[in-house]
Amino acid sequence: MKVTIIGPGLIGGSIAKDLRKAGLTTHLVGVDKNPDHAAKALELKLVDEILPMEEALPSTDFVIVSIPVNAIQQNILKILSLIGDKAVVMDAGSTKSQICEIVRDHPRRKQFVAAHPIAGTENSGPTAALEGLFKNKMNIICDRELSGEKALGAAEKIFQILGMKTIFMEAKEHDKHVAYVSHLSHVSSFLLGQTVLDIEKDEKNIFALAGSGFASTVRLAKSSPDMWAPIFEQNSKYLKKALEEYIAHLQRFHKHLVNHETEKLYEIMVQANEIRRVLSGIELNHPTPKTPVT
Amino acid sequence: MKVTIIGPGLIGGSIAKDLRKAGLTTHLVGVDKNPDHAAKALELKLVDEILPMEEALPSTDFVIVSIPVNAIQQNILKILSLIGDKAVVMDAGSTKSQICEIVRDHPRRKQFVAAHPIAGTENSGPTAALEGLFKNKMNIICDRELSGEKALGAAEKIFQILGMKTIFMEAKEHDKHVAYVSHLSHVSSFLLGQTVLDIEKDEKNIFALAGSGFASTVRLAKSSPDMWAPIFEQNSKYLKKALEEYIAHLQRFHKHLVNHETEKLYEIMVQANEIRRVLSGIELNHPTPKTPVT
Repeated sequence: MKVTIIGPGLIGGSIAKDLRKAGLTTHLVGVDKNPDHAAKALELKLVDEILPMEEALPSTDFVIVSIPVNAIQQNILKILSLIGDKAVVMDAGSTKSQICEIVRDHPRRKQFVAAHPIAGTENSGPTAALEGLFKNKMNIICDRELSGEKALGAAEKIFQILGMKTIFMEAKEHDKHVAYVSHLSHVSSFLLGQTVLDIEKDEKNIFALAGSGFASTVRLAKSSPDMWAPIFEQNSKYLKKALEEYIAHLQRFHKHLVNHETEKLYEIMVQANEIRRVLSGIELNHPTPKTPVT
Repeated sequence: MKVTIIGPGLIGGSIAKDLRKAGLTTHLVGVDKNPDHAAKALELKLVDEILPMEEALPSTDFVIVSIPVNAIQQNILKILSLIGDKAVVMDAGSTKSQICEIVRDHPRRKQFVAAHPIAGTENSGPTAALEGLFKNKMNIICDRELSGEKALGAAEKIFQILGMKTIFMEAKEHDKHVAYVSHLSHVSSFLLGQTVLDIEKDEKNIFALAGSGFASTVRLAKSSPDMWAPIFEQNSKYLKKALEEYIAHLQRFHKHLVNHETEKLYEIMVQANEIRRVLSGIELNHPTPKTPVT
């Protein structure tokens, strides 16, 4: 099987590694508009060759589109126009409504699978690709009924090789859920980072007192703006609401703090502790080492 | 040397483990007003016996006070009144101004060392105690000039055994810095947890989409309200300001999101990315395994 990866970076490159290891693909082609990334993907043997989209797509069996969500939006119609009649295209974007909307009435809609393999690190580009990145993690396929059975079967085979568990969801429902459990976490982390970097301008050596608890909370602030700005833009409707709720919670906490209503702060923390129930489920799916935090 | 640990929980119990391993102490006494914790500390052999404060303190050489900061505040004068003339008392509280203020003019001030060993996990109680918890981490001693040389020497010997690097700081400066690099992280995490738990009431199975990025950001929301409510109360002056700055950053981000000013969101994230510089320093001090995040 000939596989083309549009964007052999963290996600696309990690998929490439697992597919190659499983022997599923005889030839891996990369498409990357960034010449440095393209050269690095070749050097790391994530792909066998780099080609322009126009040359790679007509002869490929399976196309994985793992580029920022605005670039998926801009390129998906062109990609569908270039592939052969039996090829399958799957995207790996973190938002799904707008992408699904664009292809909804496309004559080749059945050849497309809208996926979101939920995995990643705070790093990006070909050097960030990791073998086994997706193992035991969740994959979401959206608007399943609009994909053809053959396309779905081919995509599911790939997710099996990656070791993922696939669930199905309507695109809007997906976008609402990820606004809360992924996008809001990123916003809170980016702005926590910015707040503390701001105060550092006046308070030198402030980070001498930062422990691994701070590191854990602010880790996502290392994430790529190229990837995340388009995600926030595409999911602004749901993220806006999630962010408003978060700010309201912070303002309520601030009010209790100023009024020295410590028993109210206590109650809020007792409620928030219920997250233990949720995290034990996540840790089962995504085992992470227990590390001390401050 | 006879050591008494008031509060043999996560912090006190972990210190006990390391002191015993190093052979520094011939007899470890625990003081705990919670009978379940007291029994557990004995069962886990964190301490050799449990005694009331009045019985334990007169004959002890070194007292470690590792209880919530409001309990330190309430008990520190009594503790100083009970110890012998050559004994040393050290606290391990996460806020330092109010505690230092209470003992400032005490006749036994020279026998007291105000410390903050920066380590911990999101768990609490005797079962959370870990050997090596403090290794390669930072310890802060506040208002050093008010402690006697003998007391400082005894405390520093203990921090050496724990493997910590000690720096010195004025209590108010300490409290301001930890408001940003520790307390604000906890608030952001507690309220992120609460926001997502709130929406879960309407949106079942929302956590199916949560990855290890969410887990990382919200991990501190598992922390003990008994420990953190008094910390927030005692540090309300600085935490209030840090929280106001954080909320202002979030509101600015929200405005750009609503106005579809994606280039502004992008700029904010590029600035926040600078946290990589800080985190690489932290990761040197507190090595954590690189784990995938979503």
